Amino acid sequence: MRIVTVSREFGSMGRELGRRIAEELGLAYYDREIITEIARETELDEGFVARVIEKGVKLHPAHYGVTFSVPLVNKKIIDVMVAQRDIIEKLASKGECVIVGRSADAILSDKRPFNAFVYADMETRIKRCREREGANGLTDKEIKRRIQEIDKGRAESRAMFSSLKWGERASYDLMINTTDVEIERIVPAVAAYIDAWFKCRGV
Amino acid sequence: MRIVTVSREFGSMGRELGRRIAEELGLAYYDREIITEIARETELDEGFVARVIEKGVKLHPAHYGVTFSVPLVNKKIIDVMVAQRDIIEKLASKGECVIVGRSADAILSDKRPFNAFVYADMETRIKRCREREGANGLTDKEIKRRIQEIDKGRAESRAMFSSLKWGERASYDLMINTTDVEIERIVPAVAAYIDAWFKCRGV
Repeated sequence: MRIVTVSREFGSMGRELGRRIAEELGLAYYDREIITEIARETELDEGFVARVIEKGVKLHPAHYGVTFSVPLVNKKIIDVMVAQRDIIEKLASKGECVIVGRSADAILSDKRPFNAFVYADMETRIKRCREREGANGLTDKEIKRRIQEIDKGRAESRAMFSSLKWGERASYDLMINTTDVEIERIVPAVAAYIDAWFKCRGV
Repeated sequence: MRIVTVSREFGSMGRELGRRIAEELGLAYYDREIITEIARETELDEGFVARVIEKGVKLHPAHYGVTFSVPLVNKKIIDVMVAQRDIIEKLASKGECVIVGRSADAILSDKRPFNAFVYADMETRIKRCREREGANGLTDKEIKRRIQEIDKGRAESRAMFSSLKWGERASYDLMINTTDVEIERIVPAVAAYIDAWFKCRGV
């Protein structure tokens, strides 16, 4: 069964690439709806869930078990992580799919998905953020800091599920630099690569 | 003009992938002959040239200019590096090509080549080295140490030409993990990716 995960730097267009690859290969596509589903399952606020999963809220193990507020937060974080794991496993068992983000590569490692990582240089990512979200009065330096914070969060969030590091080549099957690349042009080649990779495994 | 460089971990099959991509795209292919050409140009021993380029013999700047043996070695190393740069630039200016190794990505950065990096997990690389070169009585541990030494050399040799690091994603346009991959199966997709990448640049 072909399962593709797409991890990505913020501003790298990884989400668009993932969506188009799903179209090209005829696979289901999951992305932000995972957050909604976790919020529903845990009965927690969607904003809190998104923060845990995307910004890597850290556990405070030193306090764990003590009846102050920290363990309460920790309990909620663990609830989110359990739901995140369960929902991603459920989606993957439903059928072939592309999952963008949410540490799906680490969570599904037993199923041996194809793991892609999408990145770009900082200048390109700042430019894309500006085009996509408008300047909002932010300077390039402020946008850069925001990008770095989000990526740090993604790395930390993934670290809860795997010792293999976010963004390091050993964690991925293909790493794609989208600097100065038009996403729609590379989609057929990336899809063909993924197809060939699964064929090497008899899938 | 399409120039493709292929950097690779030892045992990753990067050389074979580079050769086949050149065939697929109809480009010239340069690899070990660069060493022979440098030896001819510098009138130095081919083994010494290979050591400097592939094993990253370090300069000893503290001694430079002092008339002991170290500066003599340093002079030869610099001769090799100058010839390496000149010959790779000459090859690239002759026409479209694929160059495997020899820090061509760093040397040719002004020409904006497509830079690929090929890697695989250690287990796969040990297995391939064993199949390719025979056991030679070496244990897996000894083969692993040899692989690590060669990769360290490649990283050091490249560091003479660029501050962007060997093996780090920012240095490359596409990073390909060949663990459990049959090279011939992925060649068309990789060639298509490279073709699309150049088209994004109007090349």
